[in-house]
Amino acid sequence: MPGSTFGKLFQVTTWGESHGEALGVVIDGCPPGIKITEKDIQKELDRRKPGNDNPLSSKRKENDKVEILSGIFNGITLGTPISMMVKNTDARPEDYKDLKNTFRPGHADLSYQLKYGIRDYRGGGRASGRETVSRVMAGAVAKKILEKFKVKIAINVIKQGKLNSKDVNDSVGGILEIKVKNAPSGLGEPVFDKLNSDLAKALISIGGIKAIEFGAGFKVADMKGSQNNEKFINKNGRFSTKNNNAGGILGGISYGDDIVIRLAVKPPSSIGKIQKNGRHDISLIPRIIPVVESMTAITIVDHLLRQNAIKL
Amino acid sequence: MPGSTFGKLFQVTTWGESHGEALGVVIDGCPPGIKITEKDIQKELDRRKPGNDNPLSSKRKENDKVEILSGIFNGITLGTPISMMVKNTDARPEDYKDLKNTFRPGHADLSYQLKYGIRDYRGGGRASGRETVSRVMAGAVAKKILEKFKVKIAINVIKQGKLNSKDVNDSVGGILEIKVKNAPSGLGEPVFDKLNSDLAKALISIGGIKAIEFGAGFKVADMKGSQNNEKFINKNGRFSTKNNNAGGILGGISYGDDIVIRLAVKPPSSIGKIQKNGRHDISLIPRIIPVVESMTAITIVDHLLRQNAIKL
Amino acid sequence: MPGSTFGKLFQVTTWGESHGEALGVVIDGCPPGIKITEKDIQKELDRRKPGNDNPLSSKRKENDKVEILSGIFNGITLGTPISMMVKNTDARPEDYKDLKNTFRPGHADLSYQLKYGIRDYRGGGRASGRETVSRVMAGAVAKKILEKFKVKIAINVIKQGKLNSKDVNDSVGGILEIKVKNAPSGLGEPVFDKLNSDLAKALISIGGIKAIEFGAGFKVADMKGSQNNEKFINKNGRFSTKNNNAGGILGGISYGDDIVIRLAVKPPSSIGKIQKNGRHDISLIPRIIPVVESMTAITIVDHLLRQNAIKL
Amino acid sequence: MPGSTFGKLFQVTTWGESHGEALGVVIDGCPPGIKITEKDIQKELDRRKPGNDNPLSSKRKENDKVEILSGIFNGITLGTPISMMVKNTDARPEDYKDLKNTFRPGHADLSYQLKYGIRDYRGGGRASGRETVSRVMAGAVAKKILEKFKVKIAINVIKQGKLNSKDVNDSVGGILEIKVKNAPSGLGEPVFDKLNSDLAKALISIGGIKAIEFGAGFKVADMKGSQNNEKFINKNGRFSTKNNNAGGILGGISYGDDIVIRLAVKPPSSIGKIQKNGRHDISLIPRIIPVVESMTAITIVDHLLRQNAIKL
Repeated sequence: MPGSTFGKLFQVTTWGESHGEALGVVIDGCPPGIKITEKDIQKELDRRKPGNDNPLSSKRKENDKVEILSGIFNGITLGTPISMMVKNTDARPEDYKDLKNTFRPGHADLSYQLKYGIRDYRGGGRASGRETVSRVMAGAVAKKILEKFKVKIAINVIKQGKLNSKDVNDSVGGILEIKVKNAPSGLGEPVFDKLNSDLAKALISIGGIKAIEFGAGFKVADMKGSQNNEKFINKNGRFSTKNNNAGGILGGISYGDDIVIRLAVKPPSSIGKIQKNGRHDISLIPRIIPVVESMTAITIVDHLLRQNAIKL
Repeated sequence: MPGSTFGKLFQVTTWGESHGEALGVVIDGCPPGIKITEKDIQKELDRRKPGNDNPLSSKRKENDKVEILSGIFNGITLGTPISMMVKNTDARPEDYKDLKNTFRPGHADLSYQLKYGIRDYRGGGRASGRETVSRVMAGAVAKKILEKFKVKIAINVIKQGKLNSKDVNDSVGGILEIKVKNAPSGLGEPVFDKLNSDLAKALISIGGIKAIEFGAGFKVADMKGSQNNEKFINKNGRFSTKNNNAGGILGGISYGDDIVIRLAVKPPSSIGKIQKNGRHDISLIPRIIPVVESMTAITIVDHLLRQNAIKL
Repeated sequence: MPGSTFGKLFQVTTWGESHGEALGVVIDGCPPGIKITEKDIQKELDRRKPGNDNPLSSKRKENDKVEILSGIFNGITLGTPISMMVKNTDARPEDYKDLKNTFRPGHADLSYQLKYGIRDYRGGGRASGRETVSRVMAGAVAKKILEKFKVKIAINVIKQGKLNSKDVNDSVGGILEIKVKNAPSGLGEPVFDKLNSDLAKALISIGGIKAIEFGAGFKVADMKGSQNNEKFINKNGRFSTKNNNAGGILGGISYGDDIVIRLAVKPPSSIGKIQKNGRHDISLIPRIIPVVESMTAITIVDHLLRQNAIKL
Repeated sequence: MPGSTFGKLFQVTTWGESHGEALGVVIDGCPPGIKITEKDIQKELDRRKPGNDNPLSSKRKENDKVEILSGIFNGITLGTPISMMVKNTDARPEDYKDLKNTFRPGHADLSYQLKYGIRDYRGGGRASGRETVSRVMAGAVAKKILEKFKVKIAINVIKQGKLNSKDVNDSVGGILEIKVKNAPSGLGEPVFDKLNSDLAKALISIGGIKAIEFGAGFKVADMKGSQNNEKFINKNGRFSTKNNNAGGILGGISYGDDIVIRLAVKPPSSIGKIQKNGRHDISLIPRIIPVVESMTAITIVDHLLRQNAIKL
């Protein structure tokens, strides 16, 4: 299958280009009976909007107003596909005319051209970070389901790069840490659709994420088995370990401890002169957080449904 | 779909438990006309075998003799499913009797029990590293296809932990680096099935891999955009950059440069007394290399076929 | 995966309810470089519109005006998802208020309620024939691809029921015959995704189709092998047989002869008083033809791409 | 994905050629905790075996002895892939030497050659009816699951062709009727993966099935809406209709009534002289019945799990 669909049972398909008519998402497989309003979606979209008050953020002004087009009736999911859309209102394709024959460093212009022999050069087209609008809409629905299970996703900024005044036209990277608290046990399918492999796919699929580690991560390279192994602590049937070296997942399956993941976020590639035209971000971190949350939530919900299926 | 299948067009399904009858793989979607013999498969299986000469390796003695059961006729692939199997000959389920009611630290015993309410306690069952026998058989076929495209996969050991004489019952971790040389451009599908996301999924699905990074990886957290961005060098239509910060993939699509990946390998969890019974490895590194190669090859071939499909 | 997606490589996802905001489709996997305009889509939509001049047709007045939202740039497909939408303009949900607690005979009201515990009672919601708007939009794109391969899909009405003047509030059934001319050989995958099995799935998924037969169809029950078997006629490398008993498909794979299929179309379930409110059709035949064409085209294109993938 | 896999959650992958080493199946997604022994599988295999006592049956003598290779431990499913195999013991590839350059009428020889440019000419290779051994093994497992839900699948021979003594070298067709009794309601996914579309795909994928109809089937072409529509009868929450014109499925979803399907079975293509060598059947009917049951059971179980997944 082509690549714009994620998930096996909670199946998310996104569409749209940065400077096209609109961006949208279709969620197929959302269970019926979930209460969702446009407000729930809008709240999440607003978190990823280019903010006036955030100095790291792009100057493109988009309302990102969600329209729910199907799948929800009287505020409740029907079980049928949920289609949602955000129209582009501040698209300025003419700003990108000069890029028609240019392959911007660090961008996907070249690779799209090599793949398709044609590309939408307007602001990166499908490769733009603007595509994540669709992911956040789907994530908002996934979070409503996780609420029922009292699962919480917390994101911490472990490292945020800074700019000196002299390099004002530059951009910076950073590191994020995800903690999924109260994660149900038993999620993840041996041997390829492990919970960690699907989370890795989901999170690495976000533009700008260059590395991912689970639990002790790269530190395991310097550890001995006797250090890395940890006894289980059983607290009323809920298992955990002292340092959570495993990051809450063993053999690809959650066992009830917090799921811990760290991500390396690259500095945005649009800098300098291009930045003036393209109205881009200085750091991806503030706006990528709801996207990271969304992809995590979508993956957890998908595996929740998969695990649900086999409980006869 | 359940989790024992990987790939969309070059579709690999594995089966088997560590101390069951056999382990095997079905490859569906292998193009017809590829020359493959049992020797080609056996050569790769032998590379991952527990070795007498390798002091880091388990003492379990398995011949790992491949049997090709279908899909290949007179040494040539038919286009129909290739079924391959390796029988277990040195299985010793009785060694694991004591583990029936035990959840070994660092192992998947607990998580399988929580997921399924039942588990094969004999040597980890499906969660055992022995499952990778199936991956290596599939990888051997994938490599034959990559040969036609002159793609090469090189693995370097970046770090290998060591044991002091006093901790002889312990185990060690390490770091591997993968380089895919002469990778075709245009591989990878926006926006979820990016080449890097699928490689991340494939490689994180290998037991013991706790982290993955592409190109500059975690270093991007400390970089500025002006450092991370790199001009393309066009050499006879083949593109590359000076430092390959992007790791050969931009926007999820290869552009012809080497694909560069690093993996953190954890120290094996079986140590001490258990090790004596269970006959396990001191380091995963020597035997995991052909597995890492295999998963890389399978992913690249799958995307080769996917890219091939759209070229009308 | 949930059920609103069809196709493995030419992947069609539909969404929308009869009296919701809009109906739409996302096509992922359409090859780049195909010329498509809104006119091409609109032409097909107009063919399935409730017609003033067709006495068998519903009185609901919908413009069914297509909006292309993504995936096409300057009239050419980009290779990225094509999103298309038709807004509902003559929805009259209040006409269906009385149906809230009723399960109409022959309709899906009951089965949706049993499945989901909730349903959109407005005109059948997702189960309405109006959903086929989405299929026709996708079919229009598939046909543009078939044009490149000179494949033609012809539909003949084999039987069309008639109403006597006295039963004016009733409805009628019929039989359609599909002929795919100039079908490429080699399409279809053993053993489950046979071309005939995928066509059967595609066509039986259209509401109102109750039976399907290929080639000689039900007549084979009365035939002997010596009658049903037919010698191949090789005309410049293109194979056919005298009577085409096989319907152009053997072992699930096309061999170049016309693909011949017949479908039984049931009489619409909305009749009598309900018809007055619900503005429904007397026969599905006139409006189902472009839907049948579309599902046939989508299936053929999907298999074209699948066959293309393995030609290294 | 390639075509040797059926099902989304109860995922069945078959492999093997008629005169290769063996034929087998991998079931991924079978829920844990189901009691299954080799006897359960063997019983079903024996039903499809070429029988001595059945005069319509082939003379090839195969034990068809099942070997369970994985996924079942102490007689109970583990939730991991179930691999099963039957070795070919009476393969006589040399009987087919003459067919190397021949395309037999009514067989898949030609279409495989056109598709792959290569084929296993030994007894039809992958296209042989012998492939159904794998389906029957998977069906035996599916039936064990249906037992838990008290679902029964009954097959009736509606028509069985007969040979006059003078045409002893010929073969005959027939018609089968399937009734799924006590089918759970709510199975089937709008709009493509309807229960009837997936059953159509499953059953048409069996070699020799040329037509399928649900409920009233082709008769709807001659019916009026007022005849075809039927009031629901509610008996203690279980719904049915007088004539079951709908065949137990409306809008693609079961509502609790019997699911009724009829299939046209073609006369076997191997007749006359070829029959003497190839040891084929005079009618497919006796041996196809367990195959039809199996594909029905697999489809129902797959949809059972899918419906189970959304019940939060």
